[in-house]
Amino acid sequence: MANGNGVMDKDHTLSVLVANKPGVLTHVSGLFSRRGYNIDSLTVGVTENPDISRMTIVVHGDEHVIEQVTKQLNKLIDIIKVVDISPQESVDRELALIKVNADADRRSEIIQIVDIFRARIIDVSAKSVVIETTGSSDKIDALEEMMRPFGIKEMVRTGKVALVRGGRLTQFDK
Amino acid sequence: MANGNGVMDKDHTLSVLVANKPGVLTHVSGLFSRRGYNIDSLTVGVTENPDISRMTIVVHGDEHVIEQVTKQLNKLIDIIKVVDISPQESVDRELALIKVNADADRRSEIIQIVDIFRARIIDVSAKSVVIETTGSSDKIDALEEMMRPFGIKEMVRTGKVALVRGGRLTQFDK
Repeated sequence: MANGNGVMDKDHTLSVLVANKPGVLTHVSGLFSRRGYNIDSLTVGVTENPDISRMTIVVHGDEHVIEQVTKQLNKLIDIIKVVDISPQESVDRELALIKVNADADRRSEIIQIVDIFRARIIDVSAKSVVIETTGSSDKIDALEEMMRPFGIKEMVRTGKVALVRGGRLTQFDK
Repeated sequence: MANGNGVMDKDHTLSVLVANKPGVLTHVSGLFSRRGYNIDSLTVGVTENPDISRMTIVVHGDEHVIEQVTKQLNKLIDIIKVVDISPQESVDRELALIKVNADADRRSEIIQIVDIFRARIIDVSAKSVVIETTGSSDKIDALEEMMRPFGIKEMVRTGKVALVRGGRLTQFDK
């Protein structure tokens, strides 16, 4: 989608290495919200080094603004490295848990679809199942769509995580 | 671990339904950081309703403080529901991508371990592989430990997501 300036808006995936300290998340998310930018998804978890966390942020916006935000992120003291992973070849995955209405009559139909998607049923009760699935965001969207007719009771998605393909590191020095 | 007041500190998993708007994440994370509380992991992604996102927050702290934070979260206008999922029976999962040094000589050894963990190799290059794994945080810790001797180049974890087991909903009305 082109915005008023003829610049293309698109999804950007930012991979951000940060110090594992209180307040860092607030700073980072504040940088986006002050510009009225909504973060589509964000994950933050520990890395191989317990003092360092890695955030993966998916945000929709024009290239120029994302570049500005990236520069400002790089100036924050607790930010170690930031990279816009989107233009690079990367592997990305997301995890979702979906609780679907499923009485005994419809359960086998659900199991069939779950098998096709190589997803898994990780909890079952008299009236519902919980499905675990991982894949690209598109694959999860597609499974969600297939489950909608049965009745989705609730759902949680992690948001996307990504790493650059091959032997190179996802992060480059500031 | 007991703190100075003899209250037990432990991990809490908060499941928070929020309006999908700019600024909500900043408010939520600010509530924790102002108290000096470090969030161990946080994920935020869309739900079955595109106007609503679900956050899953893992935070370590004493019961009383977490209860206070939960009450304050419930007062924020864009917060729909908050529940501390920890005391309830739940299913929880996390996703990790791990890039490991792997030349041709050691690749088969890595593949063996990956198979035992029911993980998957999703990218391979001359000198490295990327492993995708899902499971409890403990399982991911264990796989990480097994990969450490090969050399972990980089890793990203989504942080935990969770839903209450069975047919009940994870969220209760405020």
